[in-house]
Amino acid sequence: MTTLAIVGATGAVGSVMIDIIDARESVPWSEIRLIASPRSAGRRLRVRGEEIEVVALSPEAFDGVDIAMFDVPDAVSAEWAPVAVSRGAIAVDNSGAFRMDPEVPLVVPEVNAEQAHTRPKGIVSNPNCTTLSMMAALGALHRAFGLRELVVASYQAASGAGQEGIDRLQAEISAVAGKGVGHRRGDVAEAIAAAGLPVDSPFNAPLAMNVVPFAGSLRDGGWTSEELKVRNESRKILGLPDLRVSATCVRVPVVTTHSIAVHATFANDVDVAGAHQVFAAQPSIVLVDDPESKRFPTPIDVVGEDPTYVGRVRQALDFPNTLDFFVCGDNLRKGAALNTYEIAEELVRA
Amino acid sequence: MTTLAIVGATGAVGSVMIDIIDARESVPWSEIRLIASPRSAGRRLRVRGEEIEVVALSPEAFDGVDIAMFDVPDAVSAEWAPVAVSRGAIAVDNSGAFRMDPEVPLVVPEVNAEQAHTRPKGIVSNPNCTTLSMMAALGALHRAFGLRELVVASYQAASGAGQEGIDRLQAEISAVAGKGVGHRRGDVAEAIAAAGLPVDSPFNAPLAMNVVPFAGSLRDGGWTSEELKVRNESRKILGLPDLRVSATCVRVPVVTTHSIAVHATFANDVDVAGAHQVFAAQPSIVLVDDPESKRFPTPIDVVGEDPTYVGRVRQALDFPNTLDFFVCGDNLRKGAALNTYEIAEELVRA
Repeated sequence: MTTLAIVGATGAVGSVMIDIIDARESVPWSEIRLIASPRSAGRRLRVRGEEIEVVALSPEAFDGVDIAMFDVPDAVSAEWAPVAVSRGAIAVDNSGAFRMDPEVPLVVPEVNAEQAHTRPKGIVSNPNCTTLSMMAALGALHRAFGLRELVVASYQAASGAGQEGIDRLQAEISAVAGKGVGHRRGDVAEAIAAAGLPVDSPFNAPLAMNVVPFAGSLRDGGWTSEELKVRNESRKILGLPDLRVSATCVRVPVVTTHSIAVHATFANDVDVAGAHQVFAAQPSIVLVDDPESKRFPTPIDVVGEDPTYVGRVRQALDFPNTLDFFVCGDNLRKGAALNTYEIAEELVRA
Repeated sequence: MTTLAIVGATGAVGSVMIDIIDARESVPWSEIRLIASPRSAGRRLRVRGEEIEVVALSPEAFDGVDIAMFDVPDAVSAEWAPVAVSRGAIAVDNSGAFRMDPEVPLVVPEVNAEQAHTRPKGIVSNPNCTTLSMMAALGALHRAFGLRELVVASYQAASGAGQEGIDRLQAEISAVAGKGVGHRRGDVAEAIAAAGLPVDSPFNAPLAMNVVPFAGSLRDGGWTSEELKVRNESRKILGLPDLRVSATCVRVPVVTTHSIAVHATFANDVDVAGAHQVFAAQPSIVLVDDPESKRFPTPIDVVGEDPTYVGRVRQALDFPNTLDFFVCGDNLRKGAALNTYEIAEELVRA
């Protein structure tokens, strides 16, 4: 008898969580409990054919829960994950609240599943979606070749900024469509303003027909929180505290699925054939790398998919032991809901 | 008495060339001759207030021409630039036909102007637009700090594929607007097909609400022609035959202005303040780097602008002597017409 709770069940990631549970052939849960803010309490959602009433977040809501998955803002997780633990649950948290806490493991099951079983605080953290988009690929390559350096540039989807981000992008696309803009400085912003959209946007600049080299919040040295997460979380997940990382995080006008251009240097010799072998052997990776037939991953081919798609694998011409490649991963699935759920499955298997 | 010819005057880059000439306070040309394919001959275009009839490409069209700027396909340049030279002109060529020819200088005036004056074949080449988008910034940093390594990922605009590319992107944006697509694998492609757009596209995949990690044509080792141009042309322009370069070139749904995430390693110590000084001292660079106020370059702010915009300058945390930064340059202006015209100005000054 095992009870799973979804905290934030009515949010964007929460609903993908329910889709994932619905699609599983079988689940190890005797009860699934849906928890959300009091505002959403009382709503009824269908999970695996059964209507379940959403209950309001409270200490008692966690009574009898074995594993509680949190998809809520950092501050809510910071307050409520320890409450869930105090009521006897293991918390699997997809916020940034505990990721870098040395007493909280940061887990990608195909990379470091064993770490989920040592959790001094009763909490397991799920990595940031950008880090997760490339981690299956990097974990597999690291096991084979020994990762040493990482230079990455991201192409991040609007849904990384939640439903608000999706709505904003769709509204901006409608505002610029058919207007023939993009030829003159300012014409895209004018078309967006003319459609009545507020100047304030979750992206800090127009995203339609544009790219925005800023995601997250500003930290020391001009780095963004998003760029530092890619560095610090990659180091922690891979167990490489001295891994050299530089990341530039850029938002692009894509609804869902983050893409990353990766330049990775290893301790050992690597070539394209060896990398292809490693990727092909990893069940959570789909290798799409036949550029002669114009086959390479693009985000719209990966949305809704569980695996990480990898392509454009090249041996660096001028850097020893180095590969350049391109990855696409659905930021709402492997980047959030799926990995969180896979951690819960790992915990219940133990 | 100096005569300037524009070969390809009726094309996308040719018309930007005329805009640039119109906007100059004064020009050193006593005659401007417009040359195009026989199909466009006879059309009359206005240049600096004067109507000029387009003449058909022929050997005689170059008689009396001092400098002939070519903005035509590689094969046309390969055939006709030598003809222009045989008729007494210097050819300034913006195709790929001569860029890597050791007897043809590859010139960015603010980086290596002096090389325009040694031209055994009578031809000077203009670099590829992606290389050009970052070259003012890299040239200035190289003079100050000594460039050694370059890892770049591009965010390239549709107009890099010419008017056909612009038209395709605009049509795709109209096809997907208001359809709520981007949530399901294949829905973007379906919306584009439903609007009657052909499957064949200059981008090899849908570009609206997507990014496409393939530009140019396929070369050895899985590299694209575009990625190799960035490497080989950077080496030649900077006079660094051993410069280590890895580039990943990605098309994004932007009309005009290429952006590049640059990770550059130098021989000497660098920091953000030193880089800012170098950028501020370079007239062809606009530094927009105040992320605290959410000020950073984005392509829609740079379209139609002559300078290269630079921002998000960061000192790498884990790589010695290394900067990460983001550049935006209008691929039709500095990336093509403007640099070509600046070479012509350099030649006439000599």
